[in-house]
Amino acid sequence: MPQPTVTLLSDFGSQDVYVGVIKGVIGQICPAAQVIDLTHQIAPQDRWAAWFHLQVACPYFPAGTVHLAVVDPGVGTARRAIALQVDQMVLVGPDNGIFSGLWQGASAVSAVSLTRPQYWRTPTPSATFHGRDVFAPVAAHLARGVPLAELGEPVALGSLVRLELPAIAQQGETTVGVVQHCDRFGNLITNLPATVLPASDWQAVVNGHCCPGAQTYGMAPVGSAVALIGSHGWIEIAINGGSAQQQLQAGVGSRVVVGPVPEVAIGQRP
Amino acid sequence: MPQPTVTLLSDFGSQDVYVGVIKGVIGQICPAAQVIDLTHQIAPQDRWAAWFHLQVACPYFPAGTVHLAVVDPGVGTARRAIALQVDQMVLVGPDNGIFSGLWQGASAVSAVSLTRPQYWRTPTPSATFHGRDVFAPVAAHLARGVPLAELGEPVALGSLVRLELPAIAQQGETTVGVVQHCDRFGNLITNLPATVLPASDWQAVVNGHCCPGAQTYGMAPVGSAVALIGSHGWIEIAINGGSAQQQLQAGVGSRVVVGPVPEVAIGQRP
Amino acid sequence: MPQPTVTLLSDFGSQDVYVGVIKGVIGQICPAAQVIDLTHQIAPQDRWAAWFHLQVACPYFPAGTVHLAVVDPGVGTARRAIALQVDQMVLVGPDNGIFSGLWQGASAVSAVSLTRPQYWRTPTPSATFHGRDVFAPVAAHLARGVPLAELGEPVALGSLVRLELPAIAQQGETTVGVVQHCDRFGNLITNLPATVLPASDWQAVVNGHCCPGAQTYGMAPVGSAVALIGSHGWIEIAINGGSAQQQLQAGVGSRVVVGPVPEVAIGQRP
Repeated sequence: MPQPTVTLLSDFGSQDVYVGVIKGVIGQICPAAQVIDLTHQIAPQDRWAAWFHLQVACPYFPAGTVHLAVVDPGVGTARRAIALQVDQMVLVGPDNGIFSGLWQGASAVSAVSLTRPQYWRTPTPSATFHGRDVFAPVAAHLARGVPLAELGEPVALGSLVRLELPAIAQQGETTVGVVQHCDRFGNLITNLPATVLPASDWQAVVNGHCCPGAQTYGMAPVGSAVALIGSHGWIEIAINGGSAQQQLQAGVGSRVVVGPVPEVAIGQRP
Repeated sequence: MPQPTVTLLSDFGSQDVYVGVIKGVIGQICPAAQVIDLTHQIAPQDRWAAWFHLQVACPYFPAGTVHLAVVDPGVGTARRAIALQVDQMVLVGPDNGIFSGLWQGASAVSAVSLTRPQYWRTPTPSATFHGRDVFAPVAAHLARGVPLAELGEPVALGSLVRLELPAIAQQGETTVGVVQHCDRFGNLITNLPATVLPASDWQAVVNGHCCPGAQTYGMAPVGSAVALIGSHGWIEIAINGGSAQQQLQAGVGSRVVVGPVPEVAIGQRP
Repeated sequence: MPQPTVTLLSDFGSQDVYVGVIKGVIGQICPAAQVIDLTHQIAPQDRWAAWFHLQVACPYFPAGTVHLAVVDPGVGTARRAIALQVDQMVLVGPDNGIFSGLWQGASAVSAVSLTRPQYWRTPTPSATFHGRDVFAPVAAHLARGVPLAELGEPVALGSLVRLELPAIAQQGETTVGVVQHCDRFGNLITNLPATVLPASDWQAVVNGHCCPGAQTYGMAPVGSAVALIGSHGWIEIAINGGSAQQQLQAGVGSRVVVGPVPEVAIGQRP
């Protein structure tokens, strides 16, 4: 069996030892596991950000990787703890929608509710840190090869919590979406997939700023805005050598309109 | 022999390569070691924060784990460099009290002063980076199986530096302590252990705010303060969906009073 | 063959999953690789900071380590992607000068341009994330043992982009340089090597502040400025228990003059 991989995503930040504790617990159960951080800088309780980042990152890992995600505002309440098999991925975390971008549209999905305390760190888990007491041990047992079905009762997919981004809207030749994430570089990542782009020259408009479509950052003059297909497949707005978030005064939720470049460019008057 | 684990805790932050250098040095001596970060965001030279986080994290790691901690305001001066065996844990770092929460009360403790340069990276270590030149090599040798006693002269426990939090005080039915840590979520973690709680309904008061005792965050209305037993065993004050640090204007050192809920609630007048 | 090591340095920060994605891609190609972060907090597109940190960190890793660095303002443009063998180190990243501090002066250097798509993740890489699609796969293939020469066409060293810090200048008995990095502690790290120091007592002057030469931080009174030879070999200015960056109002680019202590100390008048 190859070395098992477990990834971690959370809103724990880096100033505390919560992530380290989770790694210690995993190491006790599955010493062979290679544990990789996706990010722990999800804003506290921001399930949408977790939903976004899991979709961006998980597909790049080897088949069989266990993805443990803990963004869990409902910890200790009646919200379910779940594990899912989605194609070649295994997912572990709270049933609050953060995984729904990964399993919606997948061909092979099964889910269980984590109800078997023999796979937890303790039968009486802390009411505030299921990451340590429930999710990490379960992820480690999965990494060791325990079958998903062993961990609890099957769950119908229809009963799982889902998150949905604001829908995109077609308006004539243009498509309207929103910014769903600002990355470290100040790039504005929309919820518009590349498939909405016209065959001709295109542009994106955000906050009154017109950003011409291009292949990469360096094709715009330094300091200029550009729209492009980001590495994750979503349309993204950037400033070459700068921050679109700052310079265009836009952020998560900002409205973005994508469409063909008008025949008479903005500012020209016949 | 199973794969050895070395954990790291420091005030090095993440903007520099100091932590990476330490991992390189460990890898040269003990390539099999799995190195896990606890946190590197301890405030510069904050020995109390190191003391707190080591206590929270170290007990969750496999027996035999080597815990390397470098919060070392006295680097290059006469302060001792030490290694300790505390029950199943091995600790390496400066003798400045950061480990005292782990070994005080432990049943089996032995300590040595790191005086043997053959286990350092160089017999003439940098005067400013013993993490790289003394502690990391020693931790790696320990991870490889070198016995503690080989690394230097035995040290009497009574001579080790200790850190002590402000003592907790009993006042009638209430107990008075302080906030010792604010975590990423703005939770206020006190130095009051769960054992001080009354059998009846209880509350915590900080900065004039009365926080009812509960099992978990989600039991309070969103935006309300709650007191609970944190995952580390200390009493903690939180806001459901918010930051107690910000909302209650409290922080490290703030006075916290825990006791039974008064029969006539605050604000009620007969 | 021992477990291969791959280090990562980038300007990706920690709030996104870009680094996690790179680790996933490496894990698919070379599951045995141990991946170690140097830092991902390089300021966006700051090639000089990458140049500095690579020089500080890479020499401490085991022979054969693959160092992958992605600070890449020119991604998707005509800038070359390269891999280098420099003594016992292997380097992978963009040809924009970030590696020049490592190979200038090295005895054995060879370089190739990464032109063979069979070693990429896909023959049509994203125009904005060569870290994922070109550099990470190439680093993983190198870690697996693919020879450098297999990855593309040889490149003449004279054609590689170089970065140069502002030169240091000799002025009588003193030497003038600049601050090239401020670390997490607010230490000011200059571009002046220890070799410029006079044999006698010495001092450094920055922003009008005179900082006496010493062995380590703790030799100055708490709150006082001190100059010393940093762990990386460059002259560094620090405040014992404080931040020289804040207290001396200095930063990257600040002028620093090093020389012997004047016979009549500043401020004394006969």
